[in-house]
Amino acid sequence: MRTSQFFLSTLKEAPSEAELPSHKLMLRAGLIKKLGSGLYTWMPLGLRVLRKVEAIVREEMDKAGALELLMPAIQPAELWQESGRWAVFGPQMLKMKDRHERDFCFGPTHEEVITDIARSEIKSYKQLPLNFYQVQTKFRDEIRPRFGVMRAREFMMKDAYSFDVDAAGMAESYRKMHVAYSTIFTRLGLQFRAVKADSGAIGGDASQEFHVLADSGEDALAYCPTSDFAANVEAAEALAPAAPRAAASEALRDVDTPKQTTCEAVAALLDIPLQRTVKLIALVAGEQLQIVLLRGDHSLNEVKVGKLPGMADFRFASEEEIRAFFNCPPGFLGPVGIDRSRVRLIADRTVAAMSDFVVGANKPKFHTAGVNWGRDLPEADLVADVRNVVAGDASPDGKGVLEICRGIEVGHIFQLGTKYSQALSCNYLDAEGQLKPMEMGCYGIGVSRIVGAAIEQNFDEKGIKFSAAMAPFSVAIVPVGYQRSEAVKAAADALYAELKAQGVDVLLDDRDARPGSMFADMELIGIPHRVTVGDKSLAEGKVEYVARQDGNTELVAQADIVARLLGKLAQ
Amino acid sequence: MRTSQFFLSTLKEAPSEAELPSHKLMLRAGLIKKLGSGLYTWMPLGLRVLRKVEAIVREEMDKAGALELLMPAIQPAELWQESGRWAVFGPQMLKMKDRHERDFCFGPTHEEVITDIARSEIKSYKQLPLNFYQVQTKFRDEIRPRFGVMRAREFMMKDAYSFDVDAAGMAESYRKMHVAYSTIFTRLGLQFRAVKADSGAIGGDASQEFHVLADSGEDALAYCPTSDFAANVEAAEALAPAAPRAAASEALRDVDTPKQTTCEAVAALLDIPLQRTVKLIALVAGEQLQIVLLRGDHSLNEVKVGKLPGMADFRFASEEEIRAFFNCPPGFLGPVGIDRSRVRLIADRTVAAMSDFVVGANKPKFHTAGVNWGRDLPEADLVADVRNVVAGDASPDGKGVLEICRGIEVGHIFQLGTKYSQALSCNYLDAEGQLKPMEMGCYGIGVSRIVGAAIEQNFDEKGIKFSAAMAPFSVAIVPVGYQRSEAVKAAADALYAELKAQGVDVLLDDRDARPGSMFADMELIGIPHRVTVGDKSLAEGKVEYVARQDGNTELVAQADIVARLLGKLAQ
Repeated sequence: MRTSQFFLSTLKEAPSEAELPSHKLMLRAGLIKKLGSGLYTWMPLGLRVLRKVEAIVREEMDKAGALELLMPAIQPAELWQESGRWAVFGPQMLKMKDRHERDFCFGPTHEEVITDIARSEIKSYKQLPLNFYQVQTKFRDEIRPRFGVMRAREFMMKDAYSFDVDAAGMAESYRKMHVAYSTIFTRLGLQFRAVKADSGAIGGDASQEFHVLADSGEDALAYCPTSDFAANVEAAEALAPAAPRAAASEALRDVDTPKQTTCEAVAALLDIPLQRTVKLIALVAGEQLQIVLLRGDHSLNEVKVGKLPGMADFRFASEEEIRAFFNCPPGFLGPVGIDRSRVRLIADRTVAAMSDFVVGANKPKFHTAGVNWGRDLPEADLVADVRNVVAGDASPDGKGVLEICRGIEVGHIFQLGTKYSQALSCNYLDAEGQLKPMEMGCYGIGVSRIVGAAIEQNFDEKGIKFSAAMAPFSVAIVPVGYQRSEAVKAAADALYAELKAQGVDVLLDDRDARPGSMFADMELIGIPHRVTVGDKSLAEGKVEYVARQDGNTELVAQADIVARLLGKLAQ
Repeated sequence: MRTSQFFLSTLKEAPSEAELPSHKLMLRAGLIKKLGSGLYTWMPLGLRVLRKVEAIVREEMDKAGALELLMPAIQPAELWQESGRWAVFGPQMLKMKDRHERDFCFGPTHEEVITDIARSEIKSYKQLPLNFYQVQTKFRDEIRPRFGVMRAREFMMKDAYSFDVDAAGMAESYRKMHVAYSTIFTRLGLQFRAVKADSGAIGGDASQEFHVLADSGEDALAYCPTSDFAANVEAAEALAPAAPRAAASEALRDVDTPKQTTCEAVAALLDIPLQRTVKLIALVAGEQLQIVLLRGDHSLNEVKVGKLPGMADFRFASEEEIRAFFNCPPGFLGPVGIDRSRVRLIADRTVAAMSDFVVGANKPKFHTAGVNWGRDLPEADLVADVRNVVAGDASPDGKGVLEICRGIEVGHIFQLGTKYSQALSCNYLDAEGQLKPMEMGCYGIGVSRIVGAAIEQNFDEKGIKFSAAMAPFSVAIVPVGYQRSEAVKAAADALYAELKAQGVDVLLDDRDARPGSMFADMELIGIPHRVTVGDKSLAEGKVEYVARQDGNTELVAQADIVARLLGKLAQ
């Protein structure tokens, strides 16, 4: 492609609303253009990147034996009512009525539709296993769309659905998808990690997320460097402390904490480790106050809380509700001496093993120190894992110590089991003629999100650093004086023709622009390999090669440059 | 691909709701599966066909210099309000509100969005011309979806939009698209015709439709075999008769027509040519009755009527309105003696040139014969072309006589001019620094509809006859006894491997099914080339080749079959 026949539109500054580097860079490089909140046009340059990702996803899905189909984006409400998700999916689902006032949604996912297809098309075990996938525009009405294509409302997704005769078959289909996903992200040149995950609204028994590692990632991931354990912090178990609770050694006493309303402030004032403090979080579920105790340095894991008995629909208590029960402002709340008949006390496993701890005194400006279970307050009503793991925690597999990194979720694979096949009567006849529900898996990749995540992982002050697999063009030829020097024009045109003949995706920048401006554009848009053709080096029979990855520059003989580039692209 | 690893699902009978052969065959062949009214899943077999069409469309658009992008399907109402089309587009547009109660639509077309992009991205004449296109899922809420993918609500469309500095530039962009479209339909192996068209809701000055010719086509097309004139009957001008009106030669008289309420019946009773009769059609526009006179064998062209002065919003008069004015039941209405101050009389050009004609007498059971303009009734208030052309009419270019055929619209190209650029202030600076509106064109192809139209044009009693360019697989290998004969299996596998190595899209039917059933499946799904591998012919070193197009069968030496197939595919 020649720049003069393409559409480049780069900006010096990104719109101020863009927060993340990838969002800023995608706007500045002209990969995308905003139409509305969470709605982006993929401009010609950006679409080239998206299509490359899409092609690799498709190739690996095909290699894994999945069959591509294409379901409608608009889905009738009836199927969602049958699965029970019409009411529960929530406002993320964009609903609408057609001209006949029938209910439809813009499908946020397609379990219902594919299960409907499977139940009518698949009759016998002989037809199984099957794995269907599609690459399609999805819509999720995010309450706060942001980060460009990373949390857009309309996005491109690859969703796959497997059907097997039994759980072992499902596990094998799932394993194949795990392999395919790993190959996809490897081919895209991304640093990624597969982690155990919570199954959320999709449901099912087991699931893993694939994350592109990036400091700005929305998700915290826990992994064990000395084993293969890895999980989203949401889903990583915090083990109970190995050592039993120590005996009480301090007397219960109130301590003055006139302005100290946080564990950090109290610990600093008392000059004790934060690990000796306990904080109280007031929740409401089943119309009852639920008091959670966490160690001062720990944070609440809402996913874990939601899975406790009776807590599925929990919410945080309001300040009014808190004052009504404790008769005390937040910041000084404590569990000692409260009316335990009116609340449930849930202690995190770590807190349950603590002794001589410090916690709010339940009166303004005071905390209580030397608190001990049993002696000063009855044991908790429930001891459970309700916190997020932190670096240094024991790995749940017992094989080391956890570290934390951050990631951007780009894929999610689920073992669904028979959740949808039972709800929609998606059955097959086994070899004995018995009707059985199919075992299902589902597998998503955020195709458009991958582009944002890749940039979030690979950029510098000059712009995007795409891998050759994702770059809009693999090679940029930048002639200095294309419109003025016959020699430069001839050399650049010849190199362009030769690379094209070799099937290289090459951009010839034939604009009549300043070299610095052309270089800056090529760096901004992330072309991995650049060849500068200028009179000076041509006089010596050479061109200049620059690697975007490390900025390394070298003069290469004209006769060698094509082979050199092909060598680099083959790496 | 091996059948055992693919998903074939053929039916003996099509669901009864399918009317058209293409709809029946697409369901029977398992190309598509219905999800709801006008909503179809493209099953793996059908998606292969759709993707082949899509790829050819994309290749030719790229060759023509158009740049692919991808706009959101969901569009904010604001842009449509700015262009004025939010209110006028009608119930075909699927509207919805997001969680914040803002108005959106599922874009039925993208003039507004692309014009919004152009006005912010294109500043100078130096950036022009540009032509952007996308291949995207569209939604139009048809009042009566039918004919499968041919009139579905959700469908795949290629839409392109060109921007030029002036009308000459726009005409050149339009010409390039005309060439690209012709190449696309030629490559797809379709019999097609480009015809002059009405611009409808999209607007603009000139437009042409591309039709796949098929007897069942919804559109009637007029063309002149001795010139290059071709137009949708909607848009084909009916010239005024060359000969002047003859002088009156008969006396005005009533004739008994006790039961004759149609021109056909009256002509039969009186034993005169239908061409001597005139019929009356009562319309209402501007709160006034509008009486149109047509020759008995002609039909009203509503598009032409809608373009007459004051007729933009015309409707047909109700029987009540007719009786109130004429005091006579329909079937006997006539223009003689009516109160001309309360109606407008519109005569078709042909009728205006008639003399001694027969028309209703305006009293039950009577017609009037020997009617003559001027003598028996005042000349018409308006003489205009308001009828559909018929076979035998003079070609509007004066170069012959029209014929009529039927077609399925698969593409439409428009010269929009400045309709949208003016409404949305989409301007550029010309070489003199003057701000000018861009001249636009737009160009659509119904990608999914092409599949239906191609089948409608190419089928027989056995099923679909795809061209090699569109077929889900170019070649089918059907081994007879694949599971039983080592020789058959070895020969089939070797041929399969060799064809795959040559890049041929080949299906090996490795099912353990009856040969007749496998043959029938391959014929139904429209594979153009079939090779049968069986023990009997293998003993002679031969395989059987069958052409789907004509059913011709020949024995070919095993050593020659690959070259023979490659030769046929290269045709």
